[in-house]
Amino acid sequence: MAVLRELVGDTLRTHRVRNGMTLRDVSAKARVSLGYISEVERGQKEPSSELLAALCDALQVSLSRVLRDVSVQLELAEQLESMVPDDAAKLKELVSVG
Amino acid sequence: MAVLRELVGDTLRTHRVRNGMTLRDVSAKARVSLGYISEVERGQKEPSSELLAALCDALQVSLSRVLRDVSVQLELAEQLESMVPDDAAKLKELVSVG
Repeated sequence: MAVLRELVGDTLRTHRVRNGMTLRDVSAKARVSLGYISEVERGQKEPSSELLAALCDALQVSLSRVLRDVSVQLELAEQLESMVPDDAAKLKELVSVG
Repeated sequence: MAVLRELVGDTLRTHRVRNGMTLRDVSAKARVSLGYISEVERGQKEPSSELLAALCDALQVSLSRVLRDVSVQLELAEQLESMVPDDAAKLKELVSVG
């Protein structure tokens, strides 16, 4: 099963890259250590509510938007997992080809 | 600003009550101490991804659903905060009256 903190990390990284920001930029703006942000992005650290809010602030993205992005990804993952293995494999193949 | 863990706690409690479950029921099903679940529901403890998944499992609600619920509440809170104070006060009055 997809682990929530990995999806949160991926989503934060996506927004950071989309904004053309480096880890260093976010670290300076959010006043959080670069190493810690990197661990959060890689799903290795569970960010507290306050840290997550500070990161979203630095990334100029609303926390509600990040959570919505995560919930959509999670819903897809849940649907994939509830499928018959063969169907799920076919779907994954389609997605990676298409 | 609404703190994420408080919204998560409220949402978990809402689903528990809707399912007619007690804290004791959830504690037994999720194998998590009753006191800890109570603290999570009151927004006093930040649940890890794994604990959150276990609680959702016990509540028979998908994690994506909980996150979607939270993101909707958060979006409303963000919109209220970005309003002119007078307008926000009027809206809050309307909501509590209606």
